[in-house]
Amino acid sequence: MDDDDKSILRGDLQDQKTTDYKSALGVTHTQIVSLPGFTTRSGRVFEKVDVSYQTLGTLSRACDNAILVCHGLSGDAHVAGTDPQTGRPGWWDYHVGPGKAIDTDKFFVIGTNTLGGCSGTTGPGSINPQTGKAWGMDFPQITVRDMAQAQAKLIDHLGIQKLFAVIGASMGGMQALSWATDLPERLQVCVPIATCTAHNAMQIAFNEIGRRAIITDAHWNGGDYSESRFPAHGLAVARMVGHVTYLSELAMARKFGRKRQPESGNSQQFSVESYLHHQGSSFVKRFDPNSYLYLTHAIDEFDLFETAPAPDVLHRMTARFLVISFTSDWLYPPAQSRELVRLLKRAGISATYINLDTEYGHDSFLIDNPPFAAVLRHFLNAEYAAKPNPSR
Amino acid sequence: MDDDDKSILRGDLQDQKTTDYKSALGVTHTQIVSLPGFTTRSGRVFEKVDVSYQTLGTLSRACDNAILVCHGLSGDAHVAGTDPQTGRPGWWDYHVGPGKAIDTDKFFVIGTNTLGGCSGTTGPGSINPQTGKAWGMDFPQITVRDMAQAQAKLIDHLGIQKLFAVIGASMGGMQALSWATDLPERLQVCVPIATCTAHNAMQIAFNEIGRRAIITDAHWNGGDYSESRFPAHGLAVARMVGHVTYLSELAMARKFGRKRQPESGNSQQFSVESYLHHQGSSFVKRFDPNSYLYLTHAIDEFDLFETAPAPDVLHRMTARFLVISFTSDWLYPPAQSRELVRLLKRAGISATYINLDTEYGHDSFLIDNPPFAAVLRHFLNAEYAAKPNPSR
Repeated sequence: MDDDDKSILRGDLQDQKTTDYKSALGVTHTQIVSLPGFTTRSGRVFEKVDVSYQTLGTLSRACDNAILVCHGLSGDAHVAGTDPQTGRPGWWDYHVGPGKAIDTDKFFVIGTNTLGGCSGTTGPGSINPQTGKAWGMDFPQITVRDMAQAQAKLIDHLGIQKLFAVIGASMGGMQALSWATDLPERLQVCVPIATCTAHNAMQIAFNEIGRRAIITDAHWNGGDYSESRFPAHGLAVARMVGHVTYLSELAMARKFGRKRQPESGNSQQFSVESYLHHQGSSFVKRFDPNSYLYLTHAIDEFDLFETAPAPDVLHRMTARFLVISFTSDWLYPPAQSRELVRLLKRAGISATYINLDTEYGHDSFLIDNPPFAAVLRHFLNAEYAAKPNPSR
Repeated sequence: MDDDDKSILRGDLQDQKTTDYKSALGVTHTQIVSLPGFTTRSGRVFEKVDVSYQTLGTLSRACDNAILVCHGLSGDAHVAGTDPQTGRPGWWDYHVGPGKAIDTDKFFVIGTNTLGGCSGTTGPGSINPQTGKAWGMDFPQITVRDMAQAQAKLIDHLGIQKLFAVIGASMGGMQALSWATDLPERLQVCVPIATCTAHNAMQIAFNEIGRRAIITDAHWNGGDYSESRFPAHGLAVARMVGHVTYLSELAMARKFGRKRQPESGNSQQFSVESYLHHQGSSFVKRFDPNSYLYLTHAIDEFDLFETAPAPDVLHRMTARFLVISFTSDWLYPPAQSRELVRLLKRAGISATYINLDTEYGHDSFLIDNPPFAAVLRHFLNAEYAAKPNPSR
């Protein structure tokens, strides 16, 4: 396997079969905090929400160097460092660590699993206190803006008044945008990556195919499944759909082409088929099907400008923006980022826009990608240096 | 619903909910002929194959005006005219009929269901004479070249030595290419549309997702299912994946955008979701899951140049080519057609190439598309007029 092959197979560090990759951070830990009293925007009240999170680096005395990293659909709080149980690096270890684009020698980085997720934070797989059983489909439909509010409760808990930056790609980018509109006084810098202000019909369509695969799995059972009767097939198909949309045609052609997979014992199988099967089956081991439904519904429903025209919404914002898209990303095409930047600039908001010429599709933000890292590093360091803060 | 909405919902005339469309051909009939003795290229022998077909127009005295139309993955022999049972128009009624691009006043048009299909021609749903039960997964793996050979047996049966043209889009385009290489003396003109000489990794990936959805459906049962226990969910998901890849992002955005489907009784449902559900459920009523597996395997395995380098393969060809692609077709991108044309021209073969600027994606050949019709009409009429034939 050449280096190029590695880079794409490492698209998601959490889904690697084997890894010779070592995190510079060593072992890192995630923890869960139980936060009392959370109400969704639709008015549903949780007595408490559990929030899984991880912190990396040191909070400055002035509390001015905190960066919240928001994950995409399948991520979790484990942003970087080695997981003590699995031995695996965090999903963004390429870009978060000492001397990396998001430099843990300089910044205090907070990773947190989203509300509705399945890696420690309250979601449909959590216990409904009123029944003593998992919520399943009785879990309230949550929104991307609720996710940002739950993150804000964690930030409160950590005693941080104002974040230096909120950074997120894909679903995480929508959360970053929600911070900028709903909590404008609580962040200095906003970095939405490979994302959009509202899904288009094709983005909704691909999500709906995944949801359909899950809910028509004979084991889904209205969301009330067990480990022994688990809708693994549906979830695997959903993940396979996701993976094809995360890659570019060119990257797939270069890495797999029409190569066969002789080691699979099935000489008829194309390598790309074997890759997708692996992605499907490893995802099933770590993800909850109902979370998949709730999170994809939330991102399909997300519309930054649903409540008011763009100028009115953007008028509230005070954050300075770095918007990044990737030329080969056909799931979140650059045109969507360009439109966001156009609206930001029209509203008089400081926005730097970079459309990076990488060939790895939507996954370009997840992989080892030096031009991407350079852009992110430069922006964060320049903004932090320029930050008016008498205590430094 | 405006005219534009109609044109995209009519993407596949066979899957319309209701239709105010009337075929100019009136009622047309398909028939099935049982042809003895067919051997696949891999050496599997069928005592007989049934072939479903339809003819439109009149065969000229010189037998020089026959056009074979090859369907894509989900098509059938019913190319044009109104089906007496369902009242539905044929899948290519927009382009085949009196005065249409493929003019039945001038040409004798033959539509035929492919080998491995499920609409009258022998396929995995047919009875295996040795067991008296449906073949299921015991059906031999057939190839696109086998499909062309079975079509040639039908042409023999019809008493036609040489076709004026073989025309096909998508899978049908691969069949047309197989005619040109394997039966070069039996066609004058070859028109591959929105197709390729071999699937790339992304094309294989999307097919594999559909196959996975089918074979992991609890009712698939190794291919041995019944009407009461039928893998409908898996087949519907496969079709939904297909439909998204057949449309362009732009066309989906224009037609569906973020519109809701209030009449579905579910105000939360996006119109694009409802569209996909409809496409999935109507497909399930007319298509066989095992055929889906066999046909998609055949097109994934198809490689025009698998047996010899391109110049050696193309050297055999004598047909004159019209190659058509569509700018917005991201499933069979124009680059694939351009590469075919480059190879044809390098081999000294007459080839006209048109990359049509239409926004409807892969389905651009199926819809009412006047620029497409004009190109096809002009080429066929000019070639037919130029045809050296003393009998006319």
